[in-house]
Amino acid sequence: RINGDRLWESLMDMAKIGPGIAGGNNRQTLTDSDKQGRELFARWCDEAGLTMGVDQMGTMFMTRPGTDPDALPVYVGSHLDTQPTGGKYDGVLGVLSGLEVIRTLNDLGIRTKHPIVVTNWTNEEGARFAPAMLASGVFAGVHTLDYAYERKDPEGLSFGDELKRIGWVGDEVVGARKMHAYFEYHIEQGPILEAEDKQIGVVTHGQGLWWLEFTLTGKEAHTGSTPMNMRVNAGLAMARIFEMVQDVAMAAQPGAVGGVGQVKFSPNSRNVLPGTIVFTVDIRSPDQAKLDGMRSQIEEKAQAICAGLGVGYAMEAVGHFDPVTFDPTLVSRVRAAAERLGYSHMNLISGAGHDACWTNRIAPSTMIMCPCVDGLSHNEAEDISKEWATAGADVLFHAVVETAEV
Amino acid sequence: RINGDRLWESLMDMAKIGPGIAGGNNRQTLTDSDKQGRELFARWCDEAGLTMGVDQMGTMFMTRPGTDPDALPVYVGSHLDTQPTGGKYDGVLGVLSGLEVIRTLNDLGIRTKHPIVVTNWTNEEGARFAPAMLASGVFAGVHTLDYAYERKDPEGLSFGDELKRIGWVGDEVVGARKMHAYFEYHIEQGPILEAEDKQIGVVTHGQGLWWLEFTLTGKEAHTGSTPMNMRVNAGLAMARIFEMVQDVAMAAQPGAVGGVGQVKFSPNSRNVLPGTIVFTVDIRSPDQAKLDGMRSQIEEKAQAICAGLGVGYAMEAVGHFDPVTFDPTLVSRVRAAAERLGYSHMNLISGAGHDACWTNRIAPSTMIMCPCVDGLSHNEAEDISKEWATAGADVLFHAVVETAEV
Ligand SMILES: NC(=O)NCCC(=O)O
Ligand SMILES: NC(=O)NCCC(=O)O
Repeated sequence: RINGDRLWESLMDMAKIGPGIAGGNNRQTLTDSDKQGRELFARWCDEAGLTMGVDQMGTMFMTRPGTDPDALPVYVGSHLDTQPTGGKYDGVLGVLSGLEVIRTLNDLGIRTKHPIVVTNWTNEEGARFAPAMLASGVFAGVHTLDYAYERKDPEGLSFGDELKRIGWVGDEVVGARKMHAYFEYHIEQGPILEAEDKQIGVVTHGQGLWWLEFTLTGKEAHTGSTPMNMRVNAGLAMARIFEMVQDVAMAAQPGAVGGVGQVKFSPNSRNVLPGTIVFTVDIRSPDQAKLDGMRSQIEEKAQAICAGLGVGYAMEAVGHFDPVTFDPTLVSRVRAAAERLGYSHMNLISGAGHDACWTNRIAPSTMIMCPCVDGLSHNEAEDISKEWATAGADVLFHAVVETAEV
Repeated sequence: RINGDRLWESLMDMAKIGPGIAGGNNRQTLTDSDKQGRELFARWCDEAGLTMGVDQMGTMFMTRPGTDPDALPVYVGSHLDTQPTGGKYDGVLGVLSGLEVIRTLNDLGIRTKHPIVVTNWTNEEGARFAPAMLASGVFAGVHTLDYAYERKDPEGLSFGDELKRIGWVGDEVVGARKMHAYFEYHIEQGPILEAEDKQIGVVTHGQGLWWLEFTLTGKEAHTGSTPMNMRVNAGLAMARIFEMVQDVAMAAQPGAVGGVGQVKFSPNSRNVLPGTIVFTVDIRSPDQAKLDGMRSQIEEKAQAICAGLGVGYAMEAVGHFDPVTFDPTLVSRVRAAAERLGYSHMNLISGAGHDACWTNRIAPSTMIMCPCVDGLSHNEAEDISKEWATAGADVLFHAVVETAEV
């Protein structure tokens, strides 16, 4: 079993970097805080005897060598970046539990046949630069490096420039590494494990996603002196699209969600009807046909809503991944480990996207989840207990060591 | 008659200060551009022989003495500040036409019994600091100076600090001046004069306004892993409030408008359901009972919408003025001047708020309007012709001189 106190202490130490305003974290990707977080993690890895590799996306690969020079490494990781008002565990738990696996192996003097590589993927959250899971996406060949470098944050700064600025452009070609397997341990970010009173989520599938970025063009005009019948009211079109997205998602129950997290009005002045509104609809389902059906319904209806109001319509998909089926062998191994360790468990479909969703395209991958209080995540109040964290890390340890072969 | 070419040239010169991105202006109040605009205007006034007074709100009063030491001054003015994506004429036309009245009097060697004071009111737009017409509101005793100084822009900077920063805190007690009359010449900002093919709007009334700032509190949560039935969806509540405001405004036709220009999502990340949404509903009507009726309907229905979704509700009125009836004597004088000069004219109700709406509480006031292309204002594409500008300035000249008595 791993050392839960040590894992918890590392979690608390990392949470000191990029503190939020309400007890959580704001350690967005490629900020100075991200840089500091990387430095702390690199120091810990160095102390644990790991060798660092960094690729051109800034992803950190920390290697513990194996005994067989020909054996491909087993990867274990997640991400250290957070949402602007993020929690202390989303992503961080997976990276630091990977490190805890290594520390425990070191403590026990265990060597594995396959190397083990603890990984910190760059820009998993997608909050500063869309899409999410950007570095693992390039790694898996889904995006080009150029595409990734050109992503812009809301201030117009590019991913490539910001990666250079914080000094984390590595020399490894992205995706050149081959993987024997990939494990990602994460908080559930949803309410099911807690409601079902289970310690371990055995993640069999992941939901697919579309991020649909709408740009509505209204007629920028005075709110007071522009008669109702002369308005080209982009705000009203947006309101109708919100309601329609809700209807489409409800009609697709169970097994689908839809909502909006980001909105930008221009010029955003109280007495000016907006000239431009940009917002992103986030829809998800584990069922490919349902997901794509929601997308086409939403596009079609949004276009009709805009046409009805004379509002200009444009849509760009700024994020996407298909539903994922994780590797059955690894999934069984996770389930068996939980069983062996005496932890209660159940199958789960991941509601969120994870780097494992991309690695699964190029190597056998799976995930382990622990509960989080009230299913709350992407919120500074995100919370887990040390016992929950420990149980999942134990399962991770067993599954990884079994896969890396002693 | 005034010199239309000279007026036009001054308008074009002022428009060079704080250029926008699409041919208009971004000369928001108390910015460096506003400071530059004030300096240019002060220089022109100095060249025209006017004496400057500045009050503690930074409002500029440029005086041409009268022949009777006991006669109260006739004021004529508007504002030089603009929206973030504003036009070249909104406000500026009124200030520079006031200056043109003086230049013409100088050219003709005419002395008036009453002094004439050309005025540039601070923060008319209310874009950077709500409410609009802030300085004239303090002048008329509607707001206290402290209240005004404490207004905050979206960056959290206060009006008082910013006024000090640009060096325009004057020494005059706000509102100490007494007015014989106040005239404001402005573009219509609406479509009526152009549609009716009239050169001059004789402004008999002004609409009243409420700015209702709603703060909705949702549960900040993951867009992917939070099931639909566990959401506290502030975005959906906002959408329903937008639609409801539209319905309330349409039910109040004719003679009412309602809409939303400003929205702020927090944390505004694509994969986070918003924890807080702040937006401002702008409703107006020339009919006091209708205006207040709309307000109470909107409040009641918004509360019900939020309650239905479990969303937290708060509302603060951040801007208000009652409908205005301008001074009948001055209104008749404007109409007579238009008639005498051979300009086509019609009565108008001002759709926008203006400093004249506040001065009207303390002195006989009225307005003159000229058409603007497509009724467009609060848009960089705002446009008028030199002929339109000239006609209104001619009427202003006649009405002012008649009131100031030769
Ligand atoms: N795990 C997580 O929150 N990832 C961000 C990508 C997503 O929105 O699902
Ligand atoms: N004239 C003008 O646009 N004033 C700003 C205040 C308002 O919104 O009516």
